[in-house]
Amino acid sequence: MEVFLTHENIAQLEKLERAALINSITGFKSLSLIGTVDTQQQTNLAVFNSVVHLGANPALMGFIVRPDSVERHTLSNIEETRYFTINHVHKQIYEQAHQTAARYGKDVSEFEACGLTPVYLNEFNSPFVKESAIKIGLEFAERIDIALNGTILVIGKIMQLYFPENAWCLDGYVDIEKAGTIACSGLDSYHETHRLARLGYAKPDKETTRIQLAYRTSG
Amino acid sequence: MEVFLTHENIAQLEKLERAALINSITGFKSLSLIGTVDTQQQTNLAVFNSVVHLGANPALMGFIVRPDSVERHTLSNIEETRYFTINHVHKQIYEQAHQTAARYGKDVSEFEACGLTPVYLNEFNSPFVKESAIKIGLEFAERIDIALNGTILVIGKIMQLYFPENAWCLDGYVDIEKAGTIACSGLDSYHETHRLARLGYAKPDKETTRIQLAYRTSG
Repeated sequence: MEVFLTHENIAQLEKLERAALINSITGFKSLSLIGTVDTQQQTNLAVFNSVVHLGANPALMGFIVRPDSVERHTLSNIEETRYFTINHVHKQIYEQAHQTAARYGKDVSEFEACGLTPVYLNEFNSPFVKESAIKIGLEFAERIDIALNGTILVIGKIMQLYFPENAWCLDGYVDIEKAGTIACSGLDSYHETHRLARLGYAKPDKETTRIQLAYRTSG
Repeated sequence: MEVFLTHENIAQLEKLERAALINSITGFKSLSLIGTVDTQQQTNLAVFNSVVHLGANPALMGFIVRPDSVERHTLSNIEETRYFTINHVHKQIYEQAHQTAARYGKDVSEFEACGLTPVYLNEFNSPFVKESAIKIGLEFAERIDIALNGTILVIGKIMQLYFPENAWCLDGYVDIEKAGTIACSGLDSYHETHRLARLGYAKPDKETTRIQLAYRTSG
């Protein structure tokens, strides 16, 4: 059987039920820890499932901050210091990542409270998550306020990038599944992945082809 | 071993290599087919991996359109007719979904060219993908041009929603894994998922708890 809901049905749902429904039907999402520091050197770490690719040249990523959420510490730190890090979440740290969503006070570092390790690399101004296999250092580029509902799109330019050499393919693709990165659905569901295939560049009147993954190094 | 790249290293990569790299390190992404129709009743279908959740009340979703891409047909149709559909991709149709990215002419419907079926439901003005288990009908709400790189964030309000009843949990969560929805990484890699857990609402000084999935119906 199929459920059919109109926008009136959705508006009439209880608040938490609606949030769970609408957050899940957008599909699988990335799962990232965003690391920042304020001008008093107090570190902050928050889990986000809204990180998106915005462009490769220049290399830009964005994420969504919701109004009146704990995520606000992340945004205020970025606006103060102009830098932040995006760190992938893998199976061994997803419970710690989830815990960073708790409403800790501004004087508490989620790194310490949740058992993750801040690390400063190559003079980058914001803390990376030591445990993450893929770490990205970004410079704040633009803040776009979405008037429709008060959310904010925060855009950063990639300045530094760290990832496991054995996950890098000859054509540039990083096998994030091999690196252990996991996916998220809804507000609280965490998922491992299993590759079906990489498919070749699509052209009209050409059969679908599969790409064999060719890594730069063995292991 | 770990690869370390600076933004200068990234800028110096060959164009396709850079695109593959940057598209993969943003993490797992949703995979959706966006259906539209123009004023001549010519249908269009395009695959997107940039659909994001923007808010639950009102229920808003967004996606990114890149400049000078085939995705432009999708955007021009939305601006003409004000409606579009977002349809989840599952294992049985991901090759057809991928094929919609080929540069077909404006007079070709990707539905027909790629073997997917347009269906009009409950007087909604844009075609859904019959094969998709989760189908969302949206009204165009706002276009936000991102000056940094010419990409466009297109925002829609959810007007209609269809999903399998046996995937709906009592708390509102839709188990998109049970519904067969798959995830994407990079430009061309497709992944099934396997749930690790749903975790309970995080609070300071509280141990992580697990949520048992409770469906509204059996089967």
